[in-house]
Amino acid sequence: MVSYKVPATSANIGPGFDCLGMAVNIYNTISFEETDKGLEIEVIGDGSDTVPLDENNMAYETAKYFFDKVGYKFKGLKIKIHNYIPIARGLGSSSSIVIGALLCANDIAGTNMSKDEILNIANEIEGHPDNVTPALVGSITASVILGDTVEYKKIIPPDMLDTIVLIPEHEMSTNEARKILPKTYDRQDCIYNISRASLLIMAMITSDYELLSKVVDDKIHQPYRKSLIKEYDFFENIMKSNGALATFISGSGSTLMAFCHKTMSQELYEILKEECKKNNIKGTIKILSPVKEGAIKLEIGG
Amino acid sequence: MVSYKVPATSANIGPGFDCLGMAVNIYNTISFEETDKGLEIEVIGDGSDTVPLDENNMAYETAKYFFDKVGYKFKGLKIKIHNYIPIARGLGSSSSIVIGALLCANDIAGTNMSKDEILNIANEIEGHPDNVTPALVGSITASVILGDTVEYKKIIPPDMLDTIVLIPEHEMSTNEARKILPKTYDRQDCIYNISRASLLIMAMITSDYELLSKVVDDKIHQPYRKSLIKEYDFFENIMKSNGALATFISGSGSTLMAFCHKTMSQELYEILKEECKKNNIKGTIKILSPVKEGAIKLEIGG
Repeated sequence: MVSYKVPATSANIGPGFDCLGMAVNIYNTISFEETDKGLEIEVIGDGSDTVPLDENNMAYETAKYFFDKVGYKFKGLKIKIHNYIPIARGLGSSSSIVIGALLCANDIAGTNMSKDEILNIANEIEGHPDNVTPALVGSITASVILGDTVEYKKIIPPDMLDTIVLIPEHEMSTNEARKILPKTYDRQDCIYNISRASLLIMAMITSDYELLSKVVDDKIHQPYRKSLIKEYDFFENIMKSNGALATFISGSGSTLMAFCHKTMSQELYEILKEECKKNNIKGTIKILSPVKEGAIKLEIGG
Repeated sequence: MVSYKVPATSANIGPGFDCLGMAVNIYNTISFEETDKGLEIEVIGDGSDTVPLDENNMAYETAKYFFDKVGYKFKGLKIKIHNYIPIARGLGSSSSIVIGALLCANDIAGTNMSKDEILNIANEIEGHPDNVTPALVGSITASVILGDTVEYKKIIPPDMLDTIVLIPEHEMSTNEARKILPKTYDRQDCIYNISRASLLIMAMITSDYELLSKVVDDKIHQPYRKSLIKEYDFFENIMKSNGALATFISGSGSTLMAFCHKTMSQELYEILKEECKKNNIKGTIKILSPVKEGAIKLEIGG
C-alpha cells in the first residue's frame, strides 16, 4: 500500500487570481493498493456519505487517467481516503485528491515521474495550477501555465503568519462562482491586481505584515462573488476591526479567510466564535497555519 | 549650489504595467542655486535647443510646486540641467527631472523631507509611481498608490542582468500611447499579466534567467503600442534569435529594451548595430545596466 498526505490549499489569495496559492495545515490522506481485481473504495471523514465509491470517484478517475497515459495495465484497485479537507468550500479538497491519487498511481506504476511531471498532469486534470501547485510543493506559490507546462516559484510564508477561516455550511459551486464574473475589466482593475499581487509577494518575502495588510485586495473576483457568500461582510468587519491583517475569499469560496499575526490568532478565533454565535451564523471556525511542505509520503505498512 | 544625479528608468517592464520600474545607468544631473532674483536656466545635452528655459521648464515647475507646498519664499533661482537621458523615449527623463528638482528644492528650503515624502510629491506631479520610484531609490521597484501614498518594495536586480536598448529617433507622445489602449480587457488578459508579473518578481529575486525569459510578456499595452513603434518586430526578432532573454517596450516607448545575460551584452550590441545598418534603421543603441542606487547628491562646490 502507498499513502500520501496532501495539504489543503487556498487559491486566488487577494489580488493573485488564478496565480497565488497557499498550503495550510489540514490534510487528506490518500492510499492505494493494487489488487487482483475490481475496485474497492473507502472514504472516511468529510463526504463519506456523498462521495461516489465507484468509477466516478475522483481519486479513481485520476488514477485511471494516469495509468492510461503511461500505459500501465492494473488488475484491481483498493482506494482509501481520509477526507479532512471540507469539500466544495474553496480549500482545495479536489486538488488534494488529484495530487494524492497521482502520487500513489506513480508509485504503483513504477513510472518514477518527477514532481514537475506530476504537476503538469495535475494541471491537465484541474485546468488551473493555483491549488495543485501548493498542494504538491507546499508554501505559497506563484504559478502560470506556459504552453502545457506549469511554471512556478515557491514563496516561503512569513514565520508568524496565521489564518483564521470561517467555513460556511453552504457549498460553493465552482460553475456558479465562474458564471458571476464579468467578461471584461477596466484597465484600472487590471493594474489594481497586477500591482497588489506584485507587492503581496514582496510583503511575504520580507515579512512586512503592515504592507501585507494593505495589498490583499482584489478587483477581479471578490466584488462579484461576495454576493454569493452571505457571511462575507460580517466576517470582514469582525476580523478587520479586531486586528486581522486582511481578509479574502479562499479559492472561489465559500470559505472566508483572514491573515493575522500568530500572536493574534487565538484571540481572533475566540472573537469570531462568539460573534458567529451571537449573530446565528453557522459554520466551522479554524485557525489554519501556512505550511512549507506539500504532499508527503507516509511510511506505513500495507 | 546643490546637485543631484538621477538615473534613467524603464517602467512597464513586461507584464508589470504601471507597477514595475527599473533604474539604469544613464543619468541627468540637476543643480539648483538660490539667487537674489529672477530665473536663470541652462540645459546641456539632450533637448538643450528645445527644452523651455522659462517658467514652463519642468524643473522650475516642480520646484515651484514644492516651494508653494511647503510655503518657502525664494527670491531667485539658477537651474542647471545636464540631460543625458533622451527625452520622450520611455526612459523616464521627466521623472528624473522631477526627482532631481524636488531633492534640490528640499535642500534649498531646508525642509528635510524623507525619501517617502519626496516620493509622494513626485507621484502627485507625475500621476504614476513606476518611474519616479526607481529614479529615487534605484533597483527594480514594485509600486502602487494607496490613497495618496506610494507603497513600494525594492527588488535587487540579478548581478548578471544587462539590457540592450534601441532608442528610435522618433519620440513617443504619452498621450497617443495612452489613447491607443483599449478601455477593457478580457479576464484571461488580466490573469496573463497578474501571473507573469508575480513570476517575474520571483525570477528576479532568485536570479532565474530561464524563467525570466519566459514571463516577460504582456497583454495590457504592448499588443497595441507596438503598432506605434515600427522597429518593434525587427528588434524582437534580432534580439531573441541571438540569445537575448526577453524584449519589451520601455515605458510607453519609443525605446525598445532587451534583457540579456551580461556575458552576451557586447555581442548583442554589435549584432544590433550591424543589423540596424543593414536594414537602414536609425536610432541609438546602448548597453544599459540596472543600478541598485537611485538619486544621489553630488558633493561639488558651488
